[in-house]
Amino acid sequence: MITLASDFGTPYPAAMKGAILRRCDARLVDIAHDFPRQDVTASAFWLTRVLPEFPPAVHLVVVDPGVGTDRAALAVRAGDHVLVGPDNGVLCPPARALVEGSGSDPDAVEFYEIAVEDPRSATFHGRDVFAPAAAELHGVEPDRLSEVESLSPAEDVIDLEFPDPEIGADRAVGTVLAIDGFGNVITNVPGDVLGGRETVRIDGRRRPVVPSYAHAEVGTPVVTVGSHGNVECAVNRGRGGEAFGLAVGDTVRMDLG
Amino acid sequence: MITLASDFGTPYPAAMKGAILRRCDARLVDIAHDFPRQDVTASAFWLTRVLPEFPPAVHLVVVDPGVGTDRAALAVRAGDHVLVGPDNGVLCPPARALVEGSGSDPDAVEFYEIAVEDPRSATFHGRDVFAPAAAELHGVEPDRLSEVESLSPAEDVIDLEFPDPEIGADRAVGTVLAIDGFGNVITNVPGDVLGGRETVRIDGRRRPVVPSYAHAEVGTPVVTVGSHGNVECAVNRGRGGEAFGLAVGDTVRMDLG
Amino acid sequence: MITLASDFGTPYPAAMKGAILRRCDARLVDIAHDFPRQDVTASAFWLTRVLPEFPPAVHLVVVDPGVGTDRAALAVRAGDHVLVGPDNGVLCPPARALVEGSGSDPDAVEFYEIAVEDPRSATFHGRDVFAPAAAELHGVEPDRLSEVESLSPAEDVIDLEFPDPEIGADRAVGTVLAIDGFGNVITNVPGDVLGGRETVRIDGRRRPVVPSYAHAEVGTPVVTVGSHGNVECAVNRGRGGEAFGLAVGDTVRMDLG
Repeated sequence: MITLASDFGTPYPAAMKGAILRRCDARLVDIAHDFPRQDVTASAFWLTRVLPEFPPAVHLVVVDPGVGTDRAALAVRAGDHVLVGPDNGVLCPPARALVEGSGSDPDAVEFYEIAVEDPRSATFHGRDVFAPAAAELHGVEPDRLSEVESLSPAEDVIDLEFPDPEIGADRAVGTVLAIDGFGNVITNVPGDVLGGRETVRIDGRRRPVVPSYAHAEVGTPVVTVGSHGNVECAVNRGRGGEAFGLAVGDTVRMDLG
Repeated sequence: MITLASDFGTPYPAAMKGAILRRCDARLVDIAHDFPRQDVTASAFWLTRVLPEFPPAVHLVVVDPGVGTDRAALAVRAGDHVLVGPDNGVLCPPARALVEGSGSDPDAVEFYEIAVEDPRSATFHGRDVFAPAAAELHGVEPDRLSEVESLSPAEDVIDLEFPDPEIGADRAVGTVLAIDGFGNVITNVPGDVLGGRETVRIDGRRRPVVPSYAHAEVGTPVVTVGSHGNVECAVNRGRGGEAFGLAVGDTVRMDLG
Repeated sequence: MITLASDFGTPYPAAMKGAILRRCDARLVDIAHDFPRQDVTASAFWLTRVLPEFPPAVHLVVVDPGVGTDRAALAVRAGDHVLVGPDNGVLCPPARALVEGSGSDPDAVEFYEIAVEDPRSATFHGRDVFAPAAAELHGVEPDRLSEVESLSPAEDVIDLEFPDPEIGADRAVGTVLAIDGFGNVITNVPGDVLGGRETVRIDGRRRPVVPSYAHAEVGTPVVTVGSHGNVECAVNRGRGGEAFGLAVGDTVRMDLG
């Protein structure tokens, strides 16, 4: 199985699929191709949420603002999974999530550089470099990547860490990691800070804490714990981002008192 | 085969696919993941049009504004097909359409409640409840759902019926059920009311009746019978909703005289 | 393998998939279903770029503003590939690209008309005519299409050619063929006219020529050779169409002096 994720829109992902299917007959599953354009952090966040749901697979990830520069092309072993994509940090958080999600040894993350022979184009490595590499690694046992001729151990890989929230006795200061298609604002604050509270103040305004969106009247701004385990600011059948005045990257102050 | 339909956008459907593929190797086919957000009626309408095209399958439908409340999770036998989704009416019209489309006994619609053990989250039952249920029911003969341990007969299922048009000798009063991506306005009025007419008055304005869009000049508002068999208000290479001033839920008056 | 491309949005492509899967168990791969609505030229352009990446397949292409008129339904052999779609030109450029891409004999393009028996609807031939034809041709050797009973040799097929650029010693005049989702402006001017130049004037303004987007500062308008081999006007992490004031169909003047 090969999953595909990118910020390509259409029809470029289909060119990657063709390039894979000329080389192997793997099952292909789309993760998303509408990640925020060239946004490595948001793409990495979504991948940490989705990829651990999958059985062992090769995950092709192409969010690659540096295409055509000398940034390396990577293959990453993450336990029973393999990630393929550019060396810009986008693979690191999902690699850690895949290892944690499967209870694997954290040391089961290994980084390899893919030998890139003069690709057909300087602007579409998804088709010319990463898709062929994913096809080649499909069927290779993840713990034998070191034996693949086109791979060599990678050094100085670019890492990416999500910001840590500040959590105190009676307040938490977090960051908006993403806003989903429903308008739900996903923060980096773990849901357990809400404890059994019935309300919490977000940026100064008191809001009800609910087990899920529909536990409030339609249109009510609420705070809940999302499916990712983090605090989420939402509106039942409305858009949390607008109601809370929050955008990706914004700071969120939660007064727990 | 498992089909997937939702109002999730991306990348949440991929999490459902991962949850399924960890459990079985069913072929997955996307119906749509951009149904109007939390619009149970419009989603049910589209499903009645699309699902009957499929061979026997499990159809996973997650348009679920009540997620996390005590609404039941359902598995529905519809002849040779099985539907899985929330108990909010969204499964009922497509279940009837599947039975009619295959000429099955109308009694071949049976409702079962899915036993829900404390899911991982209160906000993403698509991943935590419905996708695992679809995977479990993949490979079960639809007429043997009563033998599945996690299912029990469901009572008091919430139904959903589309509005009926009023049809008289020289006029019909209908409702707009949906507007498709081309802007074509799909009503609930059956196409045969148009008889062999060459024109019809829609909301007071006389419009040509054509066999298909391109039988009128580019830009001309026309009335035709859509692929679903209902009267449709359209514009050749334009947008019917705007030209006719119609939106979903609006009443349409057709003067057939 | 059957690939699917259309301007349908959702959920109509799923109805085509159902119609195929009732008839055969081909692997289905989406090319795109958001081609510019009823834009035969832009759709044909994208198909020339993407289809040659695929191994031999049946390619179902439904961009069909003339649906329901007497335009013919075609099956086209293109070397080891088969295309199925309306006779409006959309199949011709990709058929030539498939033959060139595989180094096949240019004569390996053969046009057949599909016998259309009274379809279920006049407005959805994708579901009622083209998808069943694609399913029927799946598994037929492309060089034996002449033996298929529902096909007959087609005459007077409607062709479509992209405009040719004018290329002189020190200038080129081209046309914008497409703008991709990143905002990159794709012209019909072959990339080799740029030679080793470091700058070029586009519509009177001098711009740097770069090997790929990220070789310029963020926000800088640049000229590069895209993955399709043509001159492209782009902005590193920005939108080329807006920066260059160019839209599909516009003329682009390149002063190479």
